[in-house]
Amino acid sequence: MTRAVCPGSFDPVTHGHLDVIERTARIVDDVVVAVGSNISKNALFTPDERVEMLADECAQWSNVAVTLFGGLLVDFCATHDIDVISKGLRAADFSYELQMAQMNRKLSGVDTIFLPTAPQWAFVSSSLVREVATLGGDVTPFMPAKIAERTMERVASRNAGAATDV
Amino acid sequence: MTRAVCPGSFDPVTHGHLDVIERTARIVDDVVVAVGSNISKNALFTPDERVEMLADECAQWSNVAVTLFGGLLVDFCATHDIDVISKGLRAADFSYELQMAQMNRKLSGVDTIFLPTAPQWAFVSSSLVREVATLGGDVTPFMPAKIAERTMERVASRNAGAATDV
Amino acid sequence: MTRAVCPGSFDPVTHGHLDVIERTARIVDDVVVAVGSNISKNALFTPDERVEMLADECAQWSNVAVTLFGGLLVDFCATHDIDVISKGLRAADFSYELQMAQMNRKLSGVDTIFLPTAPQWAFVSSSLVREVATLGGDVTPFMPAKIAERTMERVASRNAGAATDV
Amino acid sequence: MTRAVCPGSFDPVTHGHLDVIERTARIVDDVVVAVGSNISKNALFTPDERVEMLADECAQWSNVAVTLFGGLLVDFCATHDIDVISKGLRAADFSYELQMAQMNRKLSGVDTIFLPTAPQWAFVSSSLVREVATLGGDVTPFMPAKIAERTMERVASRNAGAATDV
Amino acid sequence: MTRAVCPGSFDPVTHGHLDVIERTARIVDDVVVAVGSNISKNALFTPDERVEMLADECAQWSNVAVTLFGGLLVDFCATHDIDVISKGLRAADFSYELQMAQMNRKLSGVDTIFLPTAPQWAFVSSSLVREVATLGGDVTPFMPAKIAERTMERVASRNAGAATDV
Amino acid sequence: MTRAVCPGSFDPVTHGHLDVIERTARIVDDVVVAVGSNISKNALFTPDERVEMLADECAQWSNVAVTLFGGLLVDFCATHDIDVISKGLRAADFSYELQMAQMNRKLSGVDTIFLPTAPQWAFVSSSLVREVATLGGDVTPFMPAKIAERTMERVASRNAGAATDV
Repeated sequence: MTRAVCPGSFDPVTHGHLDVIERTARIVDDVVVAVGSNISKNALFTPDERVEMLADECAQWSNVAVTLFGGLLVDFCATHDIDVISKGLRAADFSYELQMAQMNRKLSGVDTIFLPTAPQWAFVSSSLVREVATLGGDVTPFMPAKIAERTMERVASRNAGAATDV
Repeated sequence: MTRAVCPGSFDPVTHGHLDVIERTARIVDDVVVAVGSNISKNALFTPDERVEMLADECAQWSNVAVTLFGGLLVDFCATHDIDVISKGLRAADFSYELQMAQMNRKLSGVDTIFLPTAPQWAFVSSSLVREVATLGGDVTPFMPAKIAERTMERVASRNAGAATDV
Repeated sequence: MTRAVCPGSFDPVTHGHLDVIERTARIVDDVVVAVGSNISKNALFTPDERVEMLADECAQWSNVAVTLFGGLLVDFCATHDIDVISKGLRAADFSYELQMAQMNRKLSGVDTIFLPTAPQWAFVSSSLVREVATLGGDVTPFMPAKIAERTMERVASRNAGAATDV
Repeated sequence: MTRAVCPGSFDPVTHGHLDVIERTARIVDDVVVAVGSNISKNALFTPDERVEMLADECAQWSNVAVTLFGGLLVDFCATHDIDVISKGLRAADFSYELQMAQMNRKLSGVDTIFLPTAPQWAFVSSSLVREVATLGGDVTPFMPAKIAERTMERVASRNAGAATDV
Repeated sequence: MTRAVCPGSFDPVTHGHLDVIERTARIVDDVVVAVGSNISKNALFTPDERVEMLADECAQWSNVAVTLFGGLLVDFCATHDIDVISKGLRAADFSYELQMAQMNRKLSGVDTIFLPTAPQWAFVSSSLVREVATLGGDVTPFMPAKIAERTMERVASRNAGAATDV
Repeated sequence: MTRAVCPGSFDPVTHGHLDVIERTARIVDDVVVAVGSNISKNALFTPDERVEMLADECAQWSNVAVTLFGGLLVDFCATHDIDVISKGLRAADFSYELQMAQMNRKLSGVDTIFLPTAPQWAFVSSSLVREVATLGGDVTPFMPAKIAERTMERVASRNAGAATDV
């Protein structure tokens, strides 16, 4: 039996992320989606909110669980009996992702598999989607409807807050 | 249960190939190593010789089988109940491999996973090894001892043949 | 008034090519699609057949003409009052395309504009499509229906010819 | 008639930027140079200063106008009847620029054309020029004389201010 | 006689850095390792500590000296009679390093040579090592034993300090 | 004392090649330009002609010699007391050049240094220049005048020969 982890910050989760999670769930027996618990100052959602949103979307796959994680990914793998790390791969990320994968294998022996991004999601990333939403663009095409709605609401309330500050 | 195919020409098999096959065999239940049956004019070994050499090396893993294949890889996947294609990935190959993976998924739904090449084999390819051997270099560091010996013998006999022709 | 050339071998034309031609036709006043007249031994269609197939597909755009070309592209530009070369751009081709564009600008002052490949066609190229068709795959999703049909017919008759030779 | 936008922060404008603006002005009918109005903490010049400097340099081309812009670039395109986004392209930027172009086309249908950076400016960027100037280097080769003078003055006065603070 | 500079922040020095310094020392007559004196907020060691640690490791090579540097690298080269800049090169860094090298050659005529990273260190960088150490990972494989020890001590005392602050 | 080899096919030598040879000659004590003796069917000049043309151009540098070479480059290095391989580096070639450099270091310990291509020659390669000349273009800007003349003569006489054959 093989268990894989799909790590990420998922702030917010996009169709691209869900595509990688679903494809991983078809290849291995169990998938753990691990949401990074570190909080950057540009974060849109709290780690707990992201876990909740992901859990809702992943409920459709019986062999996928969602959880928070902190610290070294390879320590998480050891604690959770994870055999393999699974990530989507875009041309732009390749050099850095390769470096991370080789580092993780050296640190622990845990291997990484890369799934090529689906062409239709190749240009979608959480950070670009956050930027589009912040500038008032419609992010509905890039994520599930409920997530898009929450993203646009969050951005609107934050902009309102900013306005109040002035 | 997941079955993966590791496709290639393996002319000859290197430590880099075996590393990818072994890592795939740890992640999925069954692995089929598929040796391309098309014969290029620069080939060192016949497809049958390559299957035999690979089968010998892969005998150490109980869930790995070796076979010839021709035609479209996705047709081979359909006939052999293959769920996923598994390939080693080097920085240099990324754009082309991504294109092939997206094409194969479009043609048949069969997905591809990429395993990052181990750093110590990142510069080893069959074609470079063939070139080194042809020019009289020692290819022992790059492949199992028996394979290296056969490679250097084959090159020597071929060079002898060439000399006779003159 | 600006005139652009879309050069290529178009053997055969794909949805990706037509997407670039159509987008160029929206940006400039006139577009000349220039079909390379050199014949490679792996060609599927003659240059004349490619011009005919392209002319048929491009009839829907009033400012697009199709023609054969040989020799240096910048000489063609001079003879045909072309202001700019327009090409689709894939991540994989970038370094070579940049070199060609800088060479053409140095030789003649004719500039090149690159249009990013549409994500859904990013993995489609004539050579990959020819290979898929030759191995019996269905190339209908990658090109207009009539072109796909002719491509599969041509491949079939050629394979038949090959069989006759044996 | 085709109208293009050349967007950027232009802090400060370099010969590389002006080369792209001039080449765009030869290809399309009208060019709007859009200076991003967001203020980063590392900015050397205010957005208004950048507009003024650019307007001065672009006065030589009758079909080029310079203006501030904020918000989504595709919204700016809609408001200003822009048909196409035009950008210089360096090898280093390709993956990110491709992602942005595909996102902008998806959001609005506005297409992007890339002009390959002229070889002699390929290593010149505003941020590198700012760094060179800040460390006391001569940036005259990389931008028009007046801009270079203002850049070195600004850096000197800023360094003086820093010294006063200590 | 040729003198080269190996510039960097070396925070902390890794086996990859030492490999490049040693290889440079075999190619040229004299090597100056120049430690950047600018202090980033994420720095683990002060510039003086880094010079001391490097000097200790480089004592084994008679033609290598270590020193602090600030300002423009090409000014440092002029003051120290440096003929050439020597840097390790990873696939991921290429575009930016090329830009820096061309800028430095333009500013001063000082040329840059790149040594390809040794495969076994290709995935090791100071920033990744700092991150691994900060999250409690063992960084012993990536740097000399003494440096690894100091790195893990520094991280531990810093984490303790952070805790005290709360 | 350090001796470097600049290997290549130099068919024909371009300004880009001479730039790399000259820069290498400033960094090391002795330079051997090694002209590959294998004859491809597309070659324009014989290996002996290339050695003669290069020797003529390199006569201006007292520490540069030109010679034929065959077989493994690292064997040539051993026989000629070469310490280091020196090559120009273009963005497009990086992955393959890195693989070759790591292979050569593994085979023999001989290291490779890369000099970044000068921006003005970044788009010039022997094969592209051969193609331009063959199609009747003027290659004078890309190589010394005498070489350009011989290149255009050779192409003309060859085309004449081809015409006679018909």
